[in-house]
Amino acid sequence: MRAILLTIGDEILIGQILNSNAQWMSDELTGLGVQVTQHITVGDHEAEIVQALDSVVPKADFLIVGGGLGPTHDDITMKVLSHYFETPLEYDADWLAQLEAFFKSRNRPMTENNKKQAYLLKGATRIDNDCGTAAGQHFTADGTQIFVVPGVPHEMKSMMKRYILPFIATKNPSERILKQTLLTTGIGESALATRCEPFVQKVKARSDLTLAFLPSTTQVKLRLQMKSADANARKEFDALISELIEYCGKDFFGTDPTSIEQIIFDRLKQNHETLALAESCTGGYISHRLTQIPGISAVLKGSMVVYQTELKTKEVGISEAFLEKNGAVSEASVRAMAESIRQKWNSTYGLATTGYLGPTGGDERAPLGTVWIALSSKTRTESSEFHFEANRERAKERATQAALDLLRRTLS
Amino acid sequence: MRAILLTIGDEILIGQILNSNAQWMSDELTGLGVQVTQHITVGDHEAEIVQALDSVVPKADFLIVGGGLGPTHDDITMKVLSHYFETPLEYDADWLAQLEAFFKSRNRPMTENNKKQAYLLKGATRIDNDCGTAAGQHFTADGTQIFVVPGVPHEMKSMMKRYILPFIATKNPSERILKQTLLTTGIGESALATRCEPFVQKVKARSDLTLAFLPSTTQVKLRLQMKSADANARKEFDALISELIEYCGKDFFGTDPTSIEQIIFDRLKQNHETLALAESCTGGYISHRLTQIPGISAVLKGSMVVYQTELKTKEVGISEAFLEKNGAVSEASVRAMAESIRQKWNSTYGLATTGYLGPTGGDERAPLGTVWIALSSKTRTESSEFHFEANRERAKERATQAALDLLRRTLS
Repeated sequence: MRAILLTIGDEILIGQILNSNAQWMSDELTGLGVQVTQHITVGDHEAEIVQALDSVVPKADFLIVGGGLGPTHDDITMKVLSHYFETPLEYDADWLAQLEAFFKSRNRPMTENNKKQAYLLKGATRIDNDCGTAAGQHFTADGTQIFVVPGVPHEMKSMMKRYILPFIATKNPSERILKQTLLTTGIGESALATRCEPFVQKVKARSDLTLAFLPSTTQVKLRLQMKSADANARKEFDALISELIEYCGKDFFGTDPTSIEQIIFDRLKQNHETLALAESCTGGYISHRLTQIPGISAVLKGSMVVYQTELKTKEVGISEAFLEKNGAVSEASVRAMAESIRQKWNSTYGLATTGYLGPTGGDERAPLGTVWIALSSKTRTESSEFHFEANRERAKERATQAALDLLRRTLS
Repeated sequence: MRAILLTIGDEILIGQILNSNAQWMSDELTGLGVQVTQHITVGDHEAEIVQALDSVVPKADFLIVGGGLGPTHDDITMKVLSHYFETPLEYDADWLAQLEAFFKSRNRPMTENNKKQAYLLKGATRIDNDCGTAAGQHFTADGTQIFVVPGVPHEMKSMMKRYILPFIATKNPSERILKQTLLTTGIGESALATRCEPFVQKVKARSDLTLAFLPSTTQVKLRLQMKSADANARKEFDALISELIEYCGKDFFGTDPTSIEQIIFDRLKQNHETLALAESCTGGYISHRLTQIPGISAVLKGSMVVYQTELKTKEVGISEAFLEKNGAVSEASVRAMAESIRQKWNSTYGLATTGYLGPTGGDERAPLGTVWIALSSKTRTESSEFHFEANRERAKERATQAALDLLRRTLS
């Protein structure tokens, strides 16, 4: 079954707000085995709404129209739907009574504008709004089930959960969509695609499977989907996922929605181990990411962000002569930082970063974009050199991810 | 002039990612006086892309097609455009050479897949990608200027800024939209709206002005827009902005696109002053935000992220007896942290945070959500208590913003 989402609202077209509703609805519908084939957003103008309705109404089993149900003059969705489907708006005394109660319960005056919200499409089923004043609607036209919802996210979500999603679920699509997303890091999209080539070929040969490579600055996600009418498909799907994980090798670190920091936390906690950070170029970002995880204080001692060079001497025991000899951005320096912080704070691991992220900086030994990372434990210290692009924010993200990934691989 | 945005990508239709590109592009185009009339998103399927092109190509002056330019099998945008516009794909040796250089500079192998990205629409103008491998394209069809850009946000933005927006600006729409966004922090949306009420009334009385309140977790932006065909409108607009800034008072800290950290950097640098941080509950996030600013090492010594309690004793001189007496989350503790780090690292200012962000924690003296912030200088130490909601991520954001804002107000 197919669904189309039609959003009505100037505020989206002028870039004032993000259309996060479309993402949420798509995710929910996909989970019910419905294929969302189009998102379309138009402004609060009759001609544009009509044109959009012309292009979508007969093409889907479900059409969700969102936005433009407010009390002000620029909210015209109901009026336009009334014209388009040649259905009059009818005064709904029951809904008006609920609106009056709504305002009374909040000690707010009800304006004349709000009374407009009691005019609803004749013959349509009203979908009550339990946290706002705009009622939803449900009706059928040309074989398409049409749902009308407000643009306010929590009002829309409440209607979806209470009425629309359960309704769609009863249509009981025989075809379900199984989906899972694998997370990888430390490998680029192309290299990963090359490594997974036999699997990609298998996917191409089957119409029930789709595989997408979704790269971002720090990781590549692999999303596998399988359409199936068979209730026992889960077993086959799980086997395919296992096969794909094999192809990803050590660059695979988990399945959505986990994170590399969550995995690090889980492993350190399980092992009763602790971590201390000495950050230079990452500037506290490793520490920030790790401290997003609730309970991390059980394993993370803290981070020494030694941003100015003098602190490297004062806090992680690297003498000026040593810095002079090796340079602040060097393998020798980063190893000394990792070992020093581990000993100073008496942790199982010491993780350190140093680099030139730009937009200026760098020297003969370490050009702009050079980052050194080291991980020290009682038995050994390992270090890696990276060269990132000269974009400060992205280089910092990549350096942070590389540091966390070095630790993740060691803990695996 | 009118523009339509066509996004191609299954990952948006299944709700995996938000279409933030559409918002960004809409905002930029609106600023050039272009009216964005439609956003449309379809999947990576030829029939759907063709149908969307049918519905939009003749209807706008500009069409921006985004997504599906990657190196893998599911990226079919170029192939479909080639079919639809009956224009062959042609091997671009120059772009291939740039791709090879791109991979070489990053020490990454170039795969066969990437070679596909050197096949571009014959006769179209190539828009170089300075941070990725997918080239953009620009051509004209049926009187519509068509731009093709990658879906990766920073690659798209770079092409928009370097080529597409300047091109559209030369088309010189007679009606310009003047817009400016004021940044405030430390005040809620309703309180700010109440304070600005006389200005809001003035805006309502004029059809050429719009004012929007845009709240987020840490700040409220105020965007003022004025439509005008008059080249001298700038002067009037600037006067309106000055008036609005007066209403905002000390909660106003700058105009978009500045940031509170940029303002702190500029003032510290100007004053030849330095800053040292002692972070507990903010976990390195203050340091991370400040180190996003190029050149910050001139004023930021570093940050001592004392996440575990033992480090507060070891590194910022708070004895166990002191902690026992006052509690780790207390005014006495945070003042001691700020003073201690300032003296230890010999900086002009010491800024410190401590708190219980949740989802669990808190004690009798400081319930969950309590955050203490202190700023110490040679002459005085000031401290403030906050109570944030029990959502870890948002409370951390708010605590970080409050700490930066305390420093910003002191420096003003």
